[in-house]
Amino acid sequence: IAANFFGPQKNTYIRVSLPAVCFVWQIAMVVLFGVFIRYDEESDEKGWNEYKKSHNITSNIENDFYFRYPSFQDVHVMIFVGFGFLMTFLKRYSFGGVGFNFLIAAFGLQWALLMQGWFHALDPVTGKITIGIESLINADFCCAGSLIAYGALLGKVSPVQLMVVTLFGVTLFAVEEYIILDLLHCRDAGGSMVIHTFGGYYGLAISWVLYRPNLNLSKRLNGSVYHSDLFAMIGALFLWMFWPSFNSAITNHGAGQHRTVINTYLALASCVLTTFAISSMGQKKGKLDMVHIQNATLAAGVAMGTAAEFMITPYGSIIVGFCCGIISTFGYLYVTPFLEKKLKLQDTCGIHNLHAVPGMLGGFVGAIVAATATEEIYGKEGLIETFGLTGKYVNRTMSTQGGYQAAGTCVAIAFGLVGGVCVGFILRFPIWGDPADDFCFDDEAYWELPEDEETIPPVLEYNNHMINKHHDTHESQFSLEES
Amino acid sequence: IAANFFGPQKNTYIRVSLPAVCFVWQIAMVVLFGVFIRYDEESDEKGWNEYKKSHNITSNIENDFYFRYPSFQDVHVMIFVGFGFLMTFLKRYSFGGVGFNFLIAAFGLQWALLMQGWFHALDPVTGKITIGIESLINADFCCAGSLIAYGALLGKVSPVQLMVVTLFGVTLFAVEEYIILDLLHCRDAGGSMVIHTFGGYYGLAISWVLYRPNLNLSKRLNGSVYHSDLFAMIGALFLWMFWPSFNSAITNHGAGQHRTVINTYLALASCVLTTFAISSMGQKKGKLDMVHIQNATLAAGVAMGTAAEFMITPYGSIIVGFCCGIISTFGYLYVTPFLEKKLKLQDTCGIHNLHAVPGMLGGFVGAIVAATATEEIYGKEGLIETFGLTGKYVNRTMSTQGGYQAAGTCVAIAFGLVGGVCVGFILRFPIWGDPADDFCFDDEAYWELPEDEETIPPVLEYNNHMINKHHDTHESQFSLEES
Amino acid sequence: IAANFFGPQKNTYIRVSLPAVCFVWQIAMVVLFGVFIRYDEESDEKGWNEYKKSHNITSNIENDFYFRYPSFQDVHVMIFVGFGFLMTFLKRYSFGGVGFNFLIAAFGLQWALLMQGWFHALDPVTGKITIGIESLINADFCCAGSLIAYGALLGKVSPVQLMVVTLFGVTLFAVEEYIILDLLHCRDAGGSMVIHTFGGYYGLAISWVLYRPNLNLSKRLNGSVYHSDLFAMIGALFLWMFWPSFNSAITNHGAGQHRTVINTYLALASCVLTTFAISSMGQKKGKLDMVHIQNATLAAGVAMGTAAEFMITPYGSIIVGFCCGIISTFGYLYVTPFLEKKLKLQDTCGIHNLHAVPGMLGGFVGAIVAATATEEIYGKEGLIETFGLTGKYVNRTMSTQGGYQAAGTCVAIAFGLVGGVCVGFILRFPIWGDPADDFCFDDEAYWELPEDEETIPPVLEYNNHMINKHHDTHESQFSLEES
Repeated sequence: IAANFFGPQKNTYIRVSLPAVCFVWQIAMVVLFGVFIRYDEESDEKGWNEYKKSHNITSNIENDFYFRYPSFQDVHVMIFVGFGFLMTFLKRYSFGGVGFNFLIAAFGLQWALLMQGWFHALDPVTGKITIGIESLINADFCCAGSLIAYGALLGKVSPVQLMVVTLFGVTLFAVEEYIILDLLHCRDAGGSMVIHTFGGYYGLAISWVLYRPNLNLSKRLNGSVYHSDLFAMIGALFLWMFWPSFNSAITNHGAGQHRTVINTYLALASCVLTTFAISSMGQKKGKLDMVHIQNATLAAGVAMGTAAEFMITPYGSIIVGFCCGIISTFGYLYVTPFLEKKLKLQDTCGIHNLHAVPGMLGGFVGAIVAATATEEIYGKEGLIETFGLTGKYVNRTMSTQGGYQAAGTCVAIAFGLVGGVCVGFILRFPIWGDPADDFCFDDEAYWELPEDEETIPPVLEYNNHMINKHHDTHESQFSLEES
Repeated sequence: IAANFFGPQKNTYIRVSLPAVCFVWQIAMVVLFGVFIRYDEESDEKGWNEYKKSHNITSNIENDFYFRYPSFQDVHVMIFVGFGFLMTFLKRYSFGGVGFNFLIAAFGLQWALLMQGWFHALDPVTGKITIGIESLINADFCCAGSLIAYGALLGKVSPVQLMVVTLFGVTLFAVEEYIILDLLHCRDAGGSMVIHTFGGYYGLAISWVLYRPNLNLSKRLNGSVYHSDLFAMIGALFLWMFWPSFNSAITNHGAGQHRTVINTYLALASCVLTTFAISSMGQKKGKLDMVHIQNATLAAGVAMGTAAEFMITPYGSIIVGFCCGIISTFGYLYVTPFLEKKLKLQDTCGIHNLHAVPGMLGGFVGAIVAATATEEIYGKEGLIETFGLTGKYVNRTMSTQGGYQAAGTCVAIAFGLVGGVCVGFILRFPIWGDPADDFCFDDEAYWELPEDEETIPPVLEYNNHMINKHHDTHESQFSLEES
Repeated sequence: IAANFFGPQKNTYIRVSLPAVCFVWQIAMVVLFGVFIRYDEESDEKGWNEYKKSHNITSNIENDFYFRYPSFQDVHVMIFVGFGFLMTFLKRYSFGGVGFNFLIAAFGLQWALLMQGWFHALDPVTGKITIGIESLINADFCCAGSLIAYGALLGKVSPVQLMVVTLFGVTLFAVEEYIILDLLHCRDAGGSMVIHTFGGYYGLAISWVLYRPNLNLSKRLNGSVYHSDLFAMIGALFLWMFWPSFNSAITNHGAGQHRTVINTYLALASCVLTTFAISSMGQKKGKLDMVHIQNATLAAGVAMGTAAEFMITPYGSIIVGFCCGIISTFGYLYVTPFLEKKLKLQDTCGIHNLHAVPGMLGGFVGAIVAATATEEIYGKEGLIETFGLTGKYVNRTMSTQGGYQAAGTCVAIAFGLVGGVCVGFILRFPIWGDPADDFCFDDEAYWELPEDEETIPPVLEYNNHMINKHHDTHESQFSLEES
């Protein structure tokens, strides 16, 4: 009868499909890495010694490793603890939140090294991709797109579906990144466009196709408890604190990285205050909502992804943060419920407000700041370095650059929406082990769960038990039977 | 009736005051940053290119960013996760602990950039403040003073009051820092004096003025539960682990930063053992107390704030740690209860034992180590560099320097006490939305709380429910109505 | 009666023994540090100025501090948060997991500085040990051996016993490290042999000697609850994310550190996928087990400890990770239960599968990769640098080196097993305060525990209570008495 009401009965049995996907794809990675991936000249033992000689470098500190490794580790923390724990907020889907995030990021970064390598680092002579620390950062970035999409799907899909989301997500990412960064020659070091806009709309489009009309059958589990909100706060804070590293990780050495950190730091701080303000205003009793504090405070980092490396000025950064806190919190208060009711768009984590809209805004902010860049502010050399105006781009004017930046944002939106719809239809095949509408947001579907907390004997009773037993074992056993 | 007994009925409605304060102050930040704040020559695109030419620098690695960024990120983690999660230990004030910490640090660091800039980095020609990575570290440090004060007030004040505490706290900090570091020309890289002594006494003085005679009405919530103690342990450990970065973040490049890390690392390790020892001795059954482990183990980091950059020797560091663990744990066992009973001083987190006393000790340890510094140990060049004995300080003897260091500690205490009393009286106006005596330590006052944990249907019952439903939906619905 | 059945009644009273051990040993540290430990030439103020002059160094960035400090802080996080929180997974031993980890690491690192100093850094002229940032990393590494051993003993020993385990563990570590790295001249930067193989077998041997036939009396507490598994996941992820820093922390500057990071990063990613696959296959319903995700995903980091700095190639790293995920998860599924039943080996955290076996594998992988190293791949200079083939090792062939690497692994196993058995017998003296068989895995033994969670008044009832009280205080008091 249930099947009649709610469509064909779903089955969350993944004992065949998940191991199969993991094994086959991981073996494919081994083969493809064997054929294509090699160390670059700064990580190869022989290569680095030759590089030092040919470039007349005397100190190992000039290795790109020392410019980027601290940022890389911060980005790595954001991907695994940041995104992972931000998604532990549901009362009974914390294992799935942090666990599946772990799985798909671990797969995604390997696939990203290949996909990004083919598009950006394939040596035409040797046919090999060479990787170094910057490749690892880019691979982590590339995963982020799919992890953002996971935010919209949280609790409603199986891990096998998530692997599919990641496989296509990384592939689409590499293509749109190639178009935006190489063909349009945009700058987007922190990925407002290529990561957040793309990832946000990709996830929203998938979720739209996978709309579940009876999702309210799982309503009782679609919420947090006190301690799950604190776990999510760990993720939120690590994202917030390390976002300056995220945006600066692959910017230019020297003043480039330095300035990007300052701009992101200021925008994020400003965003916190307006988030608290709107969160309090949005509720009759003026109470704050943890969902806003965990998410909307991060919107400024997203929106500074493109412009943070430009000379946006410190107060420009603060203004961007100011607006983002307002827009994002409004989104959580009014837009997400509206989208669910009117557009049939179920967005578990509200990525529309944290990634899609702030990312798009960030793309346009970047376009404006680029269009208004002058030699007076950057210096001649600085303008060329910051926007990479060498080779065939040597004559591009700044207003043209701004136009291309805006165009890049549109490319990211288009890739996200079209790609997401296609992937969404693939995910509707009834073979992926996703849960029924009344079994969403529940770790019970895919995880061996420990017994419940109440099985711990309370301390006092236990102590009495101990005392009794030492006096008279039999009596205490009787009392246990009685209770 | 309650109102008659406990004074005028308090009202925690902050829907007007909190947004107003956040918006107005954040808009003030935008304006002031627009007027005053600019990139410094190492983060400005044009400036850095010119700096490199004028200083004959060939490599970007010489940018101060690469000397300080890893330490900056560690300090940033300490401020937001360290302080924030250390204050989640209360069973029902964890949201307030980590959430309000987030709010006031985000405001405080912006205001600190301005206040510290006006005192230390205002260009007399352009009238601008220039900022770089060291400014960000100092801004984080400056916030720490107010966050320490929050520790004494935790659970008893409204977020609006905390914004006021931070506004004045940062202002007072900038002034006392100017007096201690510039006028008295003390050295205090890790802030034993300017951060911990000031912040500790500032918070204690405020708490003393805000004494609540009927606070025991909230006694049932003034304690931890098992998992809230674990959340607090996350904060404690991140503070403990990153304290070497805290003390070394703005010390001299090279041996200065290197030595500061070693000294702080050793003192902290030593402190852990004596904390465990006293904690066990302090209880009849010899059991350990999580409060001590979370807090007293950190006292060594506080006490090494001044002396860690000096040649205190490794065993000197260990001795300082040894003593701090004992003193701080004794404080938690005996002094805090004494202060509450006799001095009417309610100190939720025990900042007296973690910041005020160890900070003061650290100031005097620094004075002694400075007074005994010799050219034989530091070398001529090293002595000048370590104590900044250039310009008008070129003839200052080391014993004079020691005297000034001791005087600096007294300045910090005085600023904390006097400033705290004044701010305390401001906070007594009945307009700030602080909770009534029987409503303290309760997130219910300012946060939308999720439903309670017990509303999660137990796994077994839920499974039965599933099985039933698939057999006969109606029957299971009946049984639901019955229960 | 209980005593008759279960042996002499155990007593967990440690109010004398724990403080005594902490105080006496810490005072010994003060004395020994005073006699032996000094700053090295890169952290000494005078020394560094002279070093710069004598080595013609112009920039402070050449100080080893800047090559190693970011990795050091990551390792520090792994030791205290990584190991500490990984051991919070038990429902009622989380305080002991993270707390005793904290205690023994803080003692162990001090003792390690001395022990490793005497073996590796004792100046024959001055009789002093000089320490710098690399010494701190090595001290943290040395602790790791004892912390691994703690994993096998978790919940079954007293903190005093753990101090003994650490005292001997660090001592044995320093000796076997001296034999393996200095006498056999093996390379083992990430410690597959010296840390993981030794630590794993050391812990297993101790646990074997301390076998408790009636441990099932504590069975009800030997498991996790939902939120304790999430705390453990924090530890697991910080270990996973920072393992590239662990393996690269003391490798050669430049390409050495760079390549080690890449190799470890790839192996870990690969390991995640095979762990998920086997975990799902290993259970009838195909559900995932958090124990596997928390532990087996880390095995690749352990197994890459020796080979990561070699030119193992990216796909070689992925293959190692692939195999480790399978082997380690199989271990958790089948080997640990087998060892407990057949070999009477109780291994709480399963260190056999996470450290002992992967570490041993890592030793042999390292031997194979070393034996197959050629001048063609490394370059002449690179081969000498990577394997340290200078001085009396200048003529050692690579196949000989491989043989010595394999021999080193055997030395580590032997030291672990023999040392562990000896220490185990010492721990069987009935003076250490370890818990009875029915009192294991219980923080109640050594910690002041907070009251239970259910004592928090539910929000609704509390609100009613408030309303009542404001209307009629007496009535609400009556109702409280009745309930």
